[in-house]
Amino acid sequence: MWLYTISMIGTAVFAITGVLALRRDGIDVFGALVLGIVTALGGGTVRDLIIDAPVFWIGDFNYVWVAAGSALLTFFIARPFESTQTLLLYLDGFGAALFAIAATDKVLGLGFVAPVAVMLGVWTSIGGGIARDVLAGRPNLLRSREIYATPILLGCALYILLRAGWPGAQWTGPTALLFIFAFRALVIHRGLQMPAVLSTHRPDR
Amino acid sequence: MWLYTISMIGTAVFAITGVLALRRDGIDVFGALVLGIVTALGGGTVRDLIIDAPVFWIGDFNYVWVAAGSALLTFFIARPFESTQTLLLYLDGFGAALFAIAATDKVLGLGFVAPVAVMLGVWTSIGGGIARDVLAGRPNLLRSREIYATPILLGCALYILLRAGWPGAQWTGPTALLFIFAFRALVIHRGLQMPAVLSTHRPDR
Amino acid sequence: MWLYTISMIGTAVFAITGVLALRRDGIDVFGALVLGIVTALGGGTVRDLIIDAPVFWIGDFNYVWVAAGSALLTFFIARPFESTQTLLLYLDGFGAALFAIAATDKVLGLGFVAPVAVMLGVWTSIGGGIARDVLAGRPNLLRSREIYATPILLGCALYILLRAGWPGAQWTGPTALLFIFAFRALVIHRGLQMPAVLSTHRPDR
Repeated sequence: MWLYTISMIGTAVFAITGVLALRRDGIDVFGALVLGIVTALGGGTVRDLIIDAPVFWIGDFNYVWVAAGSALLTFFIARPFESTQTLLLYLDGFGAALFAIAATDKVLGLGFVAPVAVMLGVWTSIGGGIARDVLAGRPNLLRSREIYATPILLGCALYILLRAGWPGAQWTGPTALLFIFAFRALVIHRGLQMPAVLSTHRPDR
Repeated sequence: MWLYTISMIGTAVFAITGVLALRRDGIDVFGALVLGIVTALGGGTVRDLIIDAPVFWIGDFNYVWVAAGSALLTFFIARPFESTQTLLLYLDGFGAALFAIAATDKVLGLGFVAPVAVMLGVWTSIGGGIARDVLAGRPNLLRSREIYATPILLGCALYILLRAGWPGAQWTGPTALLFIFAFRALVIHRGLQMPAVLSTHRPDR
Repeated sequence: MWLYTISMIGTAVFAITGVLALRRDGIDVFGALVLGIVTALGGGTVRDLIIDAPVFWIGDFNYVWVAAGSALLTFFIARPFESTQTLLLYLDGFGAALFAIAATDKVLGLGFVAPVAVMLGVWTSIGGGIARDVLAGRPNLLRSREIYATPILLGCALYILLRAGWPGAQWTGPTALLFIFAFRALVIHRGLQMPAVLSTHRPDR
């Protein structure tokens, strides 16, 4: 149940941030609708295809309604959001944490081994935003210097370690979630970038 | 049977328009072959993966032959087509209408609910062209001001409404098809764009 | 067994060339990891989805370890490779030949007809590199003048012809492999481009 709730919240957050990311470049209502849905549901769709599970939003169309509604609402009443770009970065970090843990849990629950669960947890979290950027012709996070995926990767691994060895089962999810969000919030707050030894970007960029 | 016929016609039309769209930017025969096939079959392939149906062209390779043949023919004898860009826009509108209705019908026939059928009808119609543009490094329709997907979305919804409530079952498909094509033809003829309230593009673009 | 071995070698080669292709544009370690894995496993993943087979690296995670290890190693110790760009082109040609024949063999072995096997053999060989380039915002081979896919297409067809009609079954795979690699090596050595009649690129480019 808590997984369902956080998945719906994550869906709304990703659709909102997806539309806001594109709104100032110029987009129409149909493009906003499609790209908001892709941001929110794209990662999980590919995950389900890869593990040969039924695509999650086919069985429960509420995901699409939430994504579509959030995207349309954001398209039409974005002005209040636009002055709060930083808040949105934190919201996006929260959504990414939700999606990563919910997906890792789903894949593990279907009987796949831990490395598959980590890989698809990370993918579910970042795949929708990558798909949106590819479709919108924008640079995506794979070429960026920002520390975006590392907290997610570590958080998914932490979640699996905690599940395996920790007695307090009910705190496993929230702990991993908090870890990802806190790490990501630190990155946003301090403007942290990958250390030079882990990047081939020119230092002055 | 009529669905099969219009699907094949739509396949040929999309492969032709796909190759023509790329021909003047510079492309070789293999690129034209692949991108013509992607334009014609890409949308339906993703649709079938999502609803977990066998991919349609695996079971009936005639789709690939028609797409490949149309793409190659267009590559080699494009000159007659090039002076008729406007005709091609109408042809593309016709192909889009064919694909949308055929896909909506297929998805409904497999027992999915109406919103899934509309969503995948629209996707089947626009997905191949979007995939072609992404692979070719061109801007795609999701960022364009042109009214392209709206007639398709309304037409798929109309088709489902008519099926549910209209006695003349044999006219349902042709009516929805005609609706999409006529709306799209009007857009092409008048050069209509999204009204400013439904778009964040700068007005002077 | 020989197919398994060459698939693993091909996986390592593609992950290495994938990371090297991006390293000088600026990339961090996570981007290199993801894009190396996409280059190595992306084509085969889509192939398996299309033929509705279990995705190969889910059942045997060694593919991911080999791809991830090769990508990370290349990211950190790329200097020795960078002075050997030409060697890498040959290695990539070898990897492409391996993937094409292994995939054609797999698809045929699952009972699909020859045209499906050729189409997916070619796709498995070129799809990962195309996905990497799309994700990295680089031009991909479909718009290039280089002769890349033609040897692969002919080699997959040759493999199927030889299997159908040649008594020396054990030489079928190596012969097709050698054909692709030799053709591709000739292209690299001589800098061959598509003849003008098979291309609409401007001649002076």
